[in-house]
Amino acid sequence: MDKKIKIGIVGYGNIGKGVEKAIAQNPDMELEAIFTRREVSAVDSNNAKLVHISKLEVYKEVIDVMILCGGSATDLGEQGPMLASQFNTVDSFDTHAKIPEYFSMMDNIAKKAGTVALISTGWDPGLFSLNRLLGEAVLPDGKDYTFWGKGVSQGHSDAIRRLEGVKNGVQYTIPIEETLEKVRCGECCEFTTREKHQRVCYVVPEESADLHKIEEDIKNMPNYFADYDTTVHFISEEELKTNHSGMPHGGFVIRTGNTGNGTKQIMEFSLKLDSNAEFTSSVIVAYARAVYKMANEGKKGAVTVLDIPFSYLSPKSPEQLRKELL
Amino acid sequence: MDKKIKIGIVGYGNIGKGVEKAIAQNPDMELEAIFTRREVSAVDSNNAKLVHISKLEVYKEVIDVMILCGGSATDLGEQGPMLASQFNTVDSFDTHAKIPEYFSMMDNIAKKAGTVALISTGWDPGLFSLNRLLGEAVLPDGKDYTFWGKGVSQGHSDAIRRLEGVKNGVQYTIPIEETLEKVRCGECCEFTTREKHQRVCYVVPEESADLHKIEEDIKNMPNYFADYDTTVHFISEEELKTNHSGMPHGGFVIRTGNTGNGTKQIMEFSLKLDSNAEFTSSVIVAYARAVYKMANEGKKGAVTVLDIPFSYLSPKSPEQLRKELL
Repeated sequence: MDKKIKIGIVGYGNIGKGVEKAIAQNPDMELEAIFTRREVSAVDSNNAKLVHISKLEVYKEVIDVMILCGGSATDLGEQGPMLASQFNTVDSFDTHAKIPEYFSMMDNIAKKAGTVALISTGWDPGLFSLNRLLGEAVLPDGKDYTFWGKGVSQGHSDAIRRLEGVKNGVQYTIPIEETLEKVRCGECCEFTTREKHQRVCYVVPEESADLHKIEEDIKNMPNYFADYDTTVHFISEEELKTNHSGMPHGGFVIRTGNTGNGTKQIMEFSLKLDSNAEFTSSVIVAYARAVYKMANEGKKGAVTVLDIPFSYLSPKSPEQLRKELL
Repeated sequence: MDKKIKIGIVGYGNIGKGVEKAIAQNPDMELEAIFTRREVSAVDSNNAKLVHISKLEVYKEVIDVMILCGGSATDLGEQGPMLASQFNTVDSFDTHAKIPEYFSMMDNIAKKAGTVALISTGWDPGLFSLNRLLGEAVLPDGKDYTFWGKGVSQGHSDAIRRLEGVKNGVQYTIPIEETLEKVRCGECCEFTTREKHQRVCYVVPEESADLHKIEEDIKNMPNYFADYDTTVHFISEEELKTNHSGMPHGGFVIRTGNTGNGTKQIMEFSLKLDSNAEFTSSVIVAYARAVYKMANEGKKGAVTVLDIPFSYLSPKSPEQLRKELL
């Protein structure tokens, strides 16, 4: 191997830590630095790679690909353009409705800077998007279904924790098995929100809180819970820590379609993840390799997972891939 | 839509017929001609698109992509080079061991001719290969498992039909559910051939044939059956026609891996196909669109599914794909 791919991480939360672990699993890569907006001494870690973000410029000729581990809601809108103007970047921008706008902004900046900016990678958007595209291209007379879970939804858990009388809580999104089975048998119909997923909440109430009111507040919360069958369990802080501190997730993309004279065909892609953040990070790291290759080939501008051949994800040569995997 | 993609079909067997049906499902494509080595009048079809293969040259400026529907064993070795020297081509070459050699031959010819030759598409090799690559790139510390079936294996059915005393027969390859479940639970171990698949045969014996001998001949046949648990059922020709004339198939590619400190992650891709030939044809037709796009961009030489971004499979624009599918 000629030279290792030098990676920088921006942001040291769950995804940043997952990326650090994923890089360690890929011998053709090397972690160069982890950039943080906090004072390095204030970060709860004695990681020698931590560097204050003000020192970015020092690394301009050193880092091949910068992995942006901030959230879409606040960080990426600002950090994306700033970093793409200096480095090749990968991010997991996941505010679906704003992707076209974010793409266009990143594309302009990356084209001017001569960098490659891969946006919105991970598993949804990301691997699930790829499978939705594949499904509709191969089976144009068909329908696709995406189910999420069983997994912890951060947004819904946050919504619970903001309620009066709630000390802590976790929400699981669970696909309804009966509906999944119907889809898998090729029963191609429309399902309501309630028929596709249920929501199960584990809530730690504050002392002497009104449990009945909390339950009603959750079940009737518009957008988040009102359209679903929701179950609320009250548990202790200890039980929450012991049984619900993991971050499992996953889901299913199913395409059912017809070929010829009504012949049924079914494609399914699914994930069962014990750690959402670590898996997302592993996807991002494989795509960082693709960005490195594309940049070396002279590509410039923003791209998405839909634009990248799978061979770019692998450290193996095209010859080796054809021989071993085709 | 500017201009339809003009497709030619070479070979009018199960795949050729499937491709014809798939083209009809894609409004941006048009079937220009179906080439056959037989006398057109001798083909059991009054399809107006049938043309004798000697007239290929007439279509040189007309057909955008030629889909080669012959078999790897006999046809493609000869037809592939002949057609790639004149047309952009797509084929489903599936003799795994000979893929590197076939790729290299097609690459030389296509580069000289200025054409694009996509080899070995379909679902295995094809979509399954893509998922094996994705699995090992995303979860490098892991293991992948491919299961086939439940489905009819042409090669094994042929092997049965060649036996003395056998009038007709069909063989199903069936993945062993218990092993599938073990893999899905992340039990990462090695399984024997016998633990992964079983083989079930439906045999129509000739009158007064020695049934016991047929059963023994099948079960002990090296390579084909000896390493598997094989079940043999004797049935009538009518029963075979009624219950076993379809060509279902499918299978599973499962990657189990660890991230971080032993966190389990599982990726699974599966197909459940009522018609193997029609699904394979639908995949080939989506990839014909990709070949058309690549040729228009000036690409030359042989490629495989591993080299092609998914966005090339779709009739939609990159903007539309980002908006609708990401």
